[in-house]
Amino acid sequence: MAQTNQVFIAIIGAGGVGKCFLSQLADLSTRRPSPKLSLCYISTSKKAVYNADYSIGDNALQDLAASTKAPMSLPQVADYLAAAPSKAILVDNTSSQDVADAYPLFLSRGVSIVTPNKKAFSGSYKLWQDIFSAASTSGAKVYHESSVGAGLPVISTLKDLVDTGDEVIKIEGVFSGTMSFLFNSFAPVEGSGGQWSAEVKKAKELGYTEPDPRDDLNGLDVARKLTILARLAGLPVESPTSFPVQSLIPKELESVSSGDEFLQRLPEFDSQMEETKSAAQKQGKVVRFVGSIDVASKAVKVGLEMFDKSHPIAALKGSDNVISFYTKRYGSNPLIIQGAGAGGEVTAMGVTSDFIKVVSQIS
Amino acid sequence: MAQTNQVFIAIIGAGGVGKCFLSQLADLSTRRPSPKLSLCYISTSKKAVYNADYSIGDNALQDLAASTKAPMSLPQVADYLAAAPSKAILVDNTSSQDVADAYPLFLSRGVSIVTPNKKAFSGSYKLWQDIFSAASTSGAKVYHESSVGAGLPVISTLKDLVDTGDEVIKIEGVFSGTMSFLFNSFAPVEGSGGQWSAEVKKAKELGYTEPDPRDDLNGLDVARKLTILARLAGLPVESPTSFPVQSLIPKELESVSSGDEFLQRLPEFDSQMEETKSAAQKQGKVVRFVGSIDVASKAVKVGLEMFDKSHPIAALKGSDNVISFYTKRYGSNPLIIQGAGAGGEVTAMGVTSDFIKVVSQIS
Repeated sequence: MAQTNQVFIAIIGAGGVGKCFLSQLADLSTRRPSPKLSLCYISTSKKAVYNADYSIGDNALQDLAASTKAPMSLPQVADYLAAAPSKAILVDNTSSQDVADAYPLFLSRGVSIVTPNKKAFSGSYKLWQDIFSAASTSGAKVYHESSVGAGLPVISTLKDLVDTGDEVIKIEGVFSGTMSFLFNSFAPVEGSGGQWSAEVKKAKELGYTEPDPRDDLNGLDVARKLTILARLAGLPVESPTSFPVQSLIPKELESVSSGDEFLQRLPEFDSQMEETKSAAQKQGKVVRFVGSIDVASKAVKVGLEMFDKSHPIAALKGSDNVISFYTKRYGSNPLIIQGAGAGGEVTAMGVTSDFIKVVSQIS
Repeated sequence: MAQTNQVFIAIIGAGGVGKCFLSQLADLSTRRPSPKLSLCYISTSKKAVYNADYSIGDNALQDLAASTKAPMSLPQVADYLAAAPSKAILVDNTSSQDVADAYPLFLSRGVSIVTPNKKAFSGSYKLWQDIFSAASTSGAKVYHESSVGAGLPVISTLKDLVDTGDEVIKIEGVFSGTMSFLFNSFAPVEGSGGQWSAEVKKAKELGYTEPDPRDDLNGLDVARKLTILARLAGLPVESPTSFPVQSLIPKELESVSSGDEFLQRLPEFDSQMEETKSAAQKQGKVVRFVGSIDVASKAVKVGLEMFDKSHPIAALKGSDNVISFYTKRYGSNPLIIQGAGAGGEVTAMGVTSDFIKVVSQIS
């Protein structure tokens, strides 16, 4: 039965990030016996594990694989958690819009949320308002560090700047591990780099792209992250399609039926990217896919830009992200955060550190 | 009288950081009416403002200047705060060892602490243990983001890495704004830079050094910061003098009576630093004053090292700090945090953001 000092946890999603989070959670429970962290629900889109007495065994993943129970509907999960013997946290490790749309319901029932899911915070501005007003009314918490830059302290740093009264002037950076990898190989600071289509193919083979690389190349992932940061900086951005986003998908290949066909035909368009690269080279620069938010002029944009070879954005390595915060207090030298912005373990780390912060506030 | 949702605040120290914090606190109170933030005590080493009913006026600084009351003793302040009508926070904006030594007392009485004061966390290991065991027993919180890198999210990031179960392998960086400024001017990546003694003199004139520049050049400030980070990473470092720290004060000038005399005689020793600079130049490198913690070998050290001109530490600008965290999860590309690591506003920002986090947990 419930101890006074106990927190109930429901996890939706058991993919790459979900599995890493489960393992970090188990490790956390071992190192910190109090409060007791009680997993009471775990589900994929197909099945679930839960019990009426809010206790499930220690082998959640095995039990999930063997389960024949269908997941509850989201309102049912909200009822179940709201009726738990003590405070409850929903960990949404999916990228589902449906789950995101239910956040206001969970929060209004007093259930806190931690998640790397970008959809809730980069969807309609109304959903954003509903989420934070539900949280503010009920006192439930909502944390989403890993929605930008995975485990890098991007969201928390921006919140700290804003909460302490600094004035954010501009945010600029490389927000996609995939785009970082592609451009660091295609247009390196030293050497001439590869053909564009070959680099995209290589990135896909290394697992750095979505199954269909167009889901990275359309720029929407970066636009979603910029939407989140812009809103945190005070701009009421309506949606990730309400500002200029440059897509790197050639018009002619937008509607081809598969990612494979896209990759097969991409070499036909290499000359376009090659021109962009040499235009930059002629100015001693390199081209990078970046996002920026100019707070004063309310200008948010995503796309290709040229950078001096000595610029921190040009010098990026591997699939690292880099985010620069220009603020009134920090002046001309920005506060910079850099490092891996994708990967199961570092994404789960952002979720786990949010989880710890929520637990410390509600237990 | 006390509202249920009220937090009482005592501030010790009203210098540069203290004044900036007061202004950020006033701004915070305006933007966030709940919980009510009630300043009930403010003191310098000479005088104080407080009242038996725990309320002081809105012009704390003016009242402090006009006050004829002596400060309470630290045990008296602890009694006063422990008896406040609701939870209390001590904000220590001094760099006083005496105040630091009293933290275990405050924490054991249930008073939370936020501070940029390095002394408590880099003094004896016993004090460190006493502080965290008092906090753990009473449930009071102790936050000290600005004790390393001012407002940069250095402490919070290291804590998140450790708390979520990552394994810290190495921490390396430039931890002193003064040293950063000195070496970025003395041994720039491009050009030959100035004479060492002239750069020290310039830094002092610009207000980048302590009144006696030897207090920066002895390396102790960096050693204190390394001690804090090493302990957070799990190494029980005994004190900031228990590992190798290179002092840049020539032996012959250690005991001269004043900072002015030191500066006057420093040019006699320029040739030593010049040799160091050219030794690096011959290898195409630059020299920088850095600190590093190698967790596996438990090696902490502070001193001069050479870096390739393309290394992020070489490319630093102005008086910026840069801190790289090498961990198991982040692999060969570290998590990097960079920006201004000194200054009243950014130091106070770290204090204010800590303050907000403590308030969210205790109110």
